[in-house]
Amino acid sequence: MSSALILIANGTEEMEFVITYDTLVRAGINCTSALVNDIPDTLPTPSPVAKCSRGVKIIADKDLADVEDPNSFDALIIPGGAKGADTLSQSKKVQGLIRAYLEKDRVVGMICAGSLAALRASLPRSKITSHPSVKADLGSAFEYSEDDVVVAGKLITSRGPGTAFLFALTLVEALVGPEKRKEVYGPMVFPPGYYTTPL
Amino acid sequence: MSSALILIANGTEEMEFVITYDTLVRAGINCTSALVNDIPDTLPTPSPVAKCSRGVKIIADKDLADVEDPNSFDALIIPGGAKGADTLSQSKKVQGLIRAYLEKDRVVGMICAGSLAALRASLPRSKITSHPSVKADLGSAFEYSEDDVVVAGKLITSRGPGTAFLFALTLVEALVGPEKRKEVYGPMVFPPGYYTTPL
Repeated sequence: MSSALILIANGTEEMEFVITYDTLVRAGINCTSALVNDIPDTLPTPSPVAKCSRGVKIIADKDLADVEDPNSFDALIIPGGAKGADTLSQSKKVQGLIRAYLEKDRVVGMICAGSLAALRASLPRSKITSHPSVKADLGSAFEYSEDDVVVAGKLITSRGPGTAFLFALTLVEALVGPEKRKEVYGPMVFPPGYYTTPL
Repeated sequence: MSSALILIANGTEEMEFVITYDTLVRAGINCTSALVNDIPDTLPTPSPVAKCSRGVKIIADKDLADVEDPNSFDALIIPGGAKGADTLSQSKKVQGLIRAYLEKDRVVGMICAGSLAALRASLPRSKITSHPSVKADLGSAFEYSEDDVVVAGKLITSRGPGTAFLFALTLVEALVGPEKRKEVYGPMVFPPGYYTTPL
């Protein structure tokens, strides 16, 4: 069974987090959400709650400190939301995970301000996209694109809540193939022709 | 300030709940999420957690039993998800609220299987839509449509996760006007032309 580690923090954009988690679960991918605490070196909390960017409170499956082998999943996902993306991208542990996933040719997904993690993890120059609000931060270190989703090897990036379905469906296709993508697409009842761009 | 009461239960479709809540908050609407317990007549819980349809755990702002005047908001929203919609639509309290909101010409939104609440609250025949999986339940009592969003007076219905953005943007327009809808649309970074159908 394919698996994904989806990070979350206070200030994470709740639509980007939930659309990704839910769509991947629909595709049969075993999802684990992990809270990254915004106060470094604090003890893991048994009830890892994130207060998201618009006030929705989500209980993560685990505190990242309690994930036994965070390097063992098939994909690592970094959602956006300014404050949440700041916490995720500044975490040395998260930066190390991003590099380790890509070195082992495994999928890393970043959306919205989450793409800042590519910069802070010092990834090599590649094609990238992000929320327009952080384009200036990324433009000199990466080859910036305004496509809805950018697939650059195993690094998959996207723009914001409005492209989160396409981001999630692209992750599904990368992890479990185009047939599974088609299978989950129907019951979600998109307007005809929406989010159909394949990898 | 405009306000909305957004219901949630175990089994609620987390994308439909979160897309609606988040988009309305972006539009400056004061949102309160309220848990409807699936075991009737239980005491309200101080930490009202819903385990949603694909496993995301959301802490509601309140237990519905603790909402002081549930009849005092500008809109009432019923998300889908088979099990969650069943709990919400079978609740006598929720059925009473739906009728009271419409009688006072206030907005009621239902999406996906949430539209079953129109049937169970015995609303008069009107145009309606829902997730295709519950079309057969609604077809004889309502004038069924396969439009992405149906606006029938103050009853606004929609189809599923794939139409949830359009549902939320339509609620924004109904509650705080088309200018606010345009204002929140941009930063969400939709692919060009997506979800633009106005009321």
